Amino acid sequence: MQLEFLGTGAGSPGKFRNVTSTALRLLDERNEVWLFDVGEGTQHQILRTTLKPRKIAKIFITHLHGDHIFGLPGLLSSRSFQGGDEPLTVYGPVGVRDFVQTALRVSGTHLSYPLKFHEITKAGTVFEDATFKVSCEPLDHRIACFGYRVEEADHPGELQADRLKALNIPSGPVYGQLKAGQTVTLPDGRTINGQDYIAAPQKGRIVTILGDTRRTPHALSLAQDADALVHESTFGKDEGKLAHNYYHSTSTQAAQVAKQAGVKQLLLTHISARYTGKLSKELQNQAQKVFKASKVVRDFDVIEIPLPKKG
Amino acid sequence: MQLEFLGTGAGSPGKFRNVTSTALRLLDERNEVWLFDVGEGTQHQILRTTLKPRKIAKIFITHLHGDHIFGLPGLLSSRSFQGGDEPLTVYGPVGVRDFVQTALRVSGTHLSYPLKFHEITKAGTVFEDATFKVSCEPLDHRIACFGYRVEEADHPGELQADRLKALNIPSGPVYGQLKAGQTVTLPDGRTINGQDYIAAPQKGRIVTILGDTRRTPHALSLAQDADALVHESTFGKDEGKLAHNYYHSTSTQAAQVAKQAGVKQLLLTHISARYTGKLSKELQNQAQKVFKASKVVRDFDVIEIPLPKKG
Ligand SMILES: [Zn+2]
Ligand SMILES: [Zn+2]
Repeated sequence: MQLEFLGTGAGSPGKFRNVTSTALRLLDERNEVWLFDVGEGTQHQILRTTLKPRKIAKIFITHLHGDHIFGLPGLLSSRSFQGGDEPLTVYGPVGVRDFVQTALRVSGTHLSYPLKFHEITKAGTVFEDATFKVSCEPLDHRIACFGYRVEEADHPGELQADRLKALNIPSGPVYGQLKAGQTVTLPDGRTINGQDYIAAPQKGRIVTILGDTRRTPHALSLAQDADALVHESTFGKDEGKLAHNYYHSTSTQAAQVAKQAGVKQLLLTHISARYTGKLSKELQNQAQKVFKASKVVRDFDVIEIPLPKKG
Repeated sequence: MQLEFLGTGAGSPGKFRNVTSTALRLLDERNEVWLFDVGEGTQHQILRTTLKPRKIAKIFITHLHGDHIFGLPGLLSSRSFQGGDEPLTVYGPVGVRDFVQTALRVSGTHLSYPLKFHEITKAGTVFEDATFKVSCEPLDHRIACFGYRVEEADHPGELQADRLKALNIPSGPVYGQLKAGQTVTLPDGRTINGQDYIAAPQKGRIVTILGDTRRTPHALSLAQDADALVHESTFGKDEGKLAHNYYHSTSTQAAQVAKQAGVKQLLLTHISARYTGKLSKELQNQAQKVFKASKVVRDFDVIEIPLPKKG
């Protein structure tokens, strides 16, 4: 599981940062990629990575500002052009369907795969299956905007075959029963409770990806105990007033959320073009003063989200 | 007057060619830039040129396929973001207004300048003022598609002041009357007809920019005597059948149009990703066998359109 940043800028594309898009690579977990926001030129950025458009199975849109959605019609069209035939679902605020369908209709585009829409109006679970759950909460932006919390299900503990073998229990169907947690009586009369030989479950990971937002308590609950928090940082430490007026956050505010929510790492994105080169380091330094594991990401950065250490 | 090619590829963006957009630089003539088609990422390409989005006064769309229009909402938004306040008009087939207005409405974008639409349904003049005229004719593509012919008005001949001075006519208001073509009686009794001292008018230039098309007689009339013809060349010489089936042209067909129409130079664009590097040279060679002044253009090529030599 990795986060790959395809666009880390704010507002308009710049020479160094494209407008927003973040890929959550779930290749080992699901052989899928999920995108969060699709600013214009996201498909161009993908051309420079190893990501395959046909593996993009879900797209989550935080809000409908142009720098977060104008790349959708092109990406969806190219995925079709390149022979993608697996279904794709777009999640996002009301209006995303109208935007995409109008673009496809007007351009006479017929997709080679089923395209579904799941429009969001309030907090709740937007997707859940055996291995992953995605929930959302509203943020505080000029228009409807959501943050997403992706929770991986716990990995069930593995059967400790080594310990069973040390007891001279020969492998065979009995291992399956033990792995299922059953109590088994062996031919030699011994009784073994499988649950005593199953390792502790491996906690699943949590990744929180927020859209543009002012300070809001919803950011905290979305980020609680996350392995990674992706938070906007449009402004610097001393621009709290600007951030408030434009419905954005400062580097320091983002770091406060990370700290209070007890996340493992904070990834700062949606960086204004005013903060190029050394100046973006400045934003990072400001955040690190509050929360050490803070990083201002750049386009094409890939951040590993390791499985939590077993406690 | 120059043509600057912002995207010269077909269908999907590639590593070497972006999807279609062509700028007609009229900086000396009108302090304006006109765009023909706006594929996704056109604003990103513009970032790498000296073009200023606020100088883009007119956008002509040939047809509504995604690779020709998906960059429109972003470009229009960024032009506003960068403080453009001069009006902008979009010309194109019916549907372009719906596409743009939906994108702007859904994204909550309020432009800082007046945006006008001029939807086209048939051949005719789409714009005309004292110095330029733009007309269109339908082409033969899968969906409604137009080619545009841009005609510069003739530049009136200049007063030949050197010849008047050689006659010892002192400069003064009389030069203005002579320049206006009047007959003037001088204080010394001589009578001078201004029309005898005005140089021949300078012919205006003609630039023809076609959209995607099969062979069609309309291409010929649009291109008649043009100083430059921009023509698609999606396919090579031997792929006439493919070109026909996909409503496109071959290199050779484009060259035949250029030759029959008597144009000065042929610029081949909309090159399939199958023709990279040396292979695009191959398209150019094929065209040159029919029409010498043929060139396969690349992204960021700037082609000067010189004033025709006085005959
Ligand atoms: Zn934004
Ligand atoms: Zn095309």
